[in-house]
Amino acid sequence: MSTTLKDALQYVRTHRNAHLDGLKTFLTFPSVSALSQHKKDVQKTAEFLADEMRRIGLEHIQIFPTDGHPIVYGDWLHAEGKPTALIYGHYDVQPVDPEALWESPPFQPEIRGGKLYARGASDDKGQVWMHLKALEAYLQTNGSLPINVKVLIEGEEEIGSPHLPPFVEQNAKRLQADLVVISDSTLLGPGQPAICYGLRGLAAMEITVKGAKSDLHSGLYGGVVQNPLQALAHILASFHDDEGRVAVPHFYDDVRPLAEEERQAWQTIAPEDHQWAEELGVPMLFGEKGYTPIERNWGRPTLEINGMGGGFQGEGIKTVLPNEARAKISCRLVPDQDPDRILDLIEAHIKNLNLPGVRVSCKRYDTGRPFLTPYDHPIIQAAKEAYEAAYGKEAVFIRMGGSIPIVEDFSRILGVPVALMGFGLPTENFHAPNEHFHLENYDKGIDTLLYYWDTLSRA
Amino acid sequence: MSTTLKDALQYVRTHRNAHLDGLKTFLTFPSVSALSQHKKDVQKTAEFLADEMRRIGLEHIQIFPTDGHPIVYGDWLHAEGKPTALIYGHYDVQPVDPEALWESPPFQPEIRGGKLYARGASDDKGQVWMHLKALEAYLQTNGSLPINVKVLIEGEEEIGSPHLPPFVEQNAKRLQADLVVISDSTLLGPGQPAICYGLRGLAAMEITVKGAKSDLHSGLYGGVVQNPLQALAHILASFHDDEGRVAVPHFYDDVRPLAEEERQAWQTIAPEDHQWAEELGVPMLFGEKGYTPIERNWGRPTLEINGMGGGFQGEGIKTVLPNEARAKISCRLVPDQDPDRILDLIEAHIKNLNLPGVRVSCKRYDTGRPFLTPYDHPIIQAAKEAYEAAYGKEAVFIRMGGSIPIVEDFSRILGVPVALMGFGLPTENFHAPNEHFHLENYDKGIDTLLYYWDTLSRA
Repeated sequence: MSTTLKDALQYVRTHRNAHLDGLKTFLTFPSVSALSQHKKDVQKTAEFLADEMRRIGLEHIQIFPTDGHPIVYGDWLHAEGKPTALIYGHYDVQPVDPEALWESPPFQPEIRGGKLYARGASDDKGQVWMHLKALEAYLQTNGSLPINVKVLIEGEEEIGSPHLPPFVEQNAKRLQADLVVISDSTLLGPGQPAICYGLRGLAAMEITVKGAKSDLHSGLYGGVVQNPLQALAHILASFHDDEGRVAVPHFYDDVRPLAEEERQAWQTIAPEDHQWAEELGVPMLFGEKGYTPIERNWGRPTLEINGMGGGFQGEGIKTVLPNEARAKISCRLVPDQDPDRILDLIEAHIKNLNLPGVRVSCKRYDTGRPFLTPYDHPIIQAAKEAYEAAYGKEAVFIRMGGSIPIVEDFSRILGVPVALMGFGLPTENFHAPNEHFHLENYDKGIDTLLYYWDTLSRA
Repeated sequence: MSTTLKDALQYVRTHRNAHLDGLKTFLTFPSVSALSQHKKDVQKTAEFLADEMRRIGLEHIQIFPTDGHPIVYGDWLHAEGKPTALIYGHYDVQPVDPEALWESPPFQPEIRGGKLYARGASDDKGQVWMHLKALEAYLQTNGSLPINVKVLIEGEEEIGSPHLPPFVEQNAKRLQADLVVISDSTLLGPGQPAICYGLRGLAAMEITVKGAKSDLHSGLYGGVVQNPLQALAHILASFHDDEGRVAVPHFYDDVRPLAEEERQAWQTIAPEDHQWAEELGVPMLFGEKGYTPIERNWGRPTLEINGMGGGFQGEGIKTVLPNEARAKISCRLVPDQDPDRILDLIEAHIKNLNLPGVRVSCKRYDTGRPFLTPYDHPIIQAAKEAYEAAYGKEAVFIRMGGSIPIVEDFSRILGVPVALMGFGLPTENFHAPNEHFHLENYDKGIDTLLYYWDTLSRA
């Protein structure tokens, strides 16, 4: 272990209380990006963050205004010949309601049982702070960093990052790096570090089926006209075959097959089917034939009905023949599926059903592309070593079934690998009352980052 | 024409104003059976009706209390050797809300443009009154009726007649007759008299599909478990084939085929397909292959989805994997289908689908049997002649797609034909604001009844 690393590791231990106090201050700002009454609070949080970045020794600090909330930037670029990491995070937080369910006020951070409770503790102020403290440790003990860093912290992640992709495109040169590091996700479970190298994309739409001018009496008109609910049921049922496979023609055309290596690796970390079924409360797991549940969730595309409705939904029975039915569907996509092409295929499939007696229309929602980064890239493999050094346990490479469109944006616009190095836990109530962060992972996470920068400098 | 009939026809013309004043008084009673605050009003209406029956010369007047609202009975049984008609109607009315939409107050009857406006004007106080005035005409001019009558007017029709079937069963001997006459329906259209000889039965249930213990995130669990909305869509879609035929095995087993004669007769009175489609606002009519729209509505059973819902139904998209979905369905049935057997078949069909990964349950609602009376029976054919005499237009025999379970109860318990002789029009807003009754049909309807009793006495 290099003296530089040893000193940095020692520094974060010595200064732990002061660093936690700093984080608590960061957490007192109610930087709720979704609510206009907090606009000034969000601005003040950006200023606090910029000051902190300046204080720890980052340079070129800048607060970039957007049409929404500002982006905070700083860098340190004096490690000649060494790799450059772009660190991304966000300083905005989710709303806190229902506030009555919080055991301690969301913007008055409190430590209970080894956990720090506050809105943003885990998502994502706590994880942003860990990065700053790791950088501070090197800069304060050694006067320099083992690598070059660019730090970009935005204030609109919780509202879908509307201004970030254009900002990255317009500032692609300024942001150019060898990799992007994002700490805004979770470990696989307690004590089990994981590096996520794949996320699914998203394509969603609403389907509306219309029949007569108004609702009809099912006695007086039953048998005369097509029932829009019946027509919608036909559409929705046609989306899958009996074995759970999506039956929209050409849906799987662009799906990149899973590597045998991935399938084997996932098998070792997947929960047992019956345990998972029991945990979720279902009689059995179910999905596309030929794939395990974890493969279906991480590596295969899906089409889900998120909601549907029409006609009488109250108590008892009403013999109405409704004139309208709606469903919302969304697809989780994998490389190399294109969200717009998938929506085209679904619309064409619905049109081909040629349902008589009704009018069908589709409305598209925002899409996101699937993300996959080469996990065998040395820069990503180095992250694995860093986790193992800090946690004393082999880190696993995972994909996730969810979608974080901004990750794919970074990867595509900058053309570099993205390491998703999360330190939260799935149980930490982000987006819910009593959000918290396990301090064990706060500490081990800072160590992981210190190890990572050290490893990268010697790669 | 007999002098007796001529005198009766003359009597209703001479006394028209007084009779209409009497009907207006009848209509001022707010006999809303559904609302407990009107319980006393309903009772007072029964007493008013009993007094009126006594006044016109009926005998054995009795107000039978029930656990709900009372049944009013009276008879006149001195036409020895002549047929006996049981006349059924109801003196209760629907609620009036939204009252603000009434152009004149619902319980302050008003004549405008040849129509009498009030709650109950058409459904059914107006039609009950016509019967009383026809009987009065014979009794006042001739001192006797050409036939025997039993008059049974109930006060719970608008809440589903809960106490009537047991009353009819317990009083089957008292109520025994050669036919039942019910005037609580409509002409086929303006100037077109019709006798309805068939109604469809009803069988309804709610289907619930349950998955996981709680709603799941569609990214984190999509592909792992079956989506209850998808499973429900499969169930609902499986109810029909692509040609509109119900695909539940054995569903049609007990259906009595339509007579060629009926199909030909209906063809002459059915609207043109394209006109009907235009009127309803659908691109085309649709239903079971091999049958015309009117045959599908009057003479063939249907299975309709009355409502369905599950998951997110608000604005925009929410990527939820819901844990529950529900649908309400109902079947309109024709002879000789049995409602309970039909629900058995549907439940067995759902069970046979054997959908993996979800739990499906069914809850049954009240049923009603289909009704069909022999329209070639002389007693029903006589009604046709009576209509034609009063309207100067050939009356048609029709069935209706709706369900009025009490009609089948009368027919089954008493074992006699039922003549549905309605004088309303489909456009008269029963159950809605501004209910009204065309006085042209009030007048011609009384004449029809006078002709009918005369014809029956000579049959």
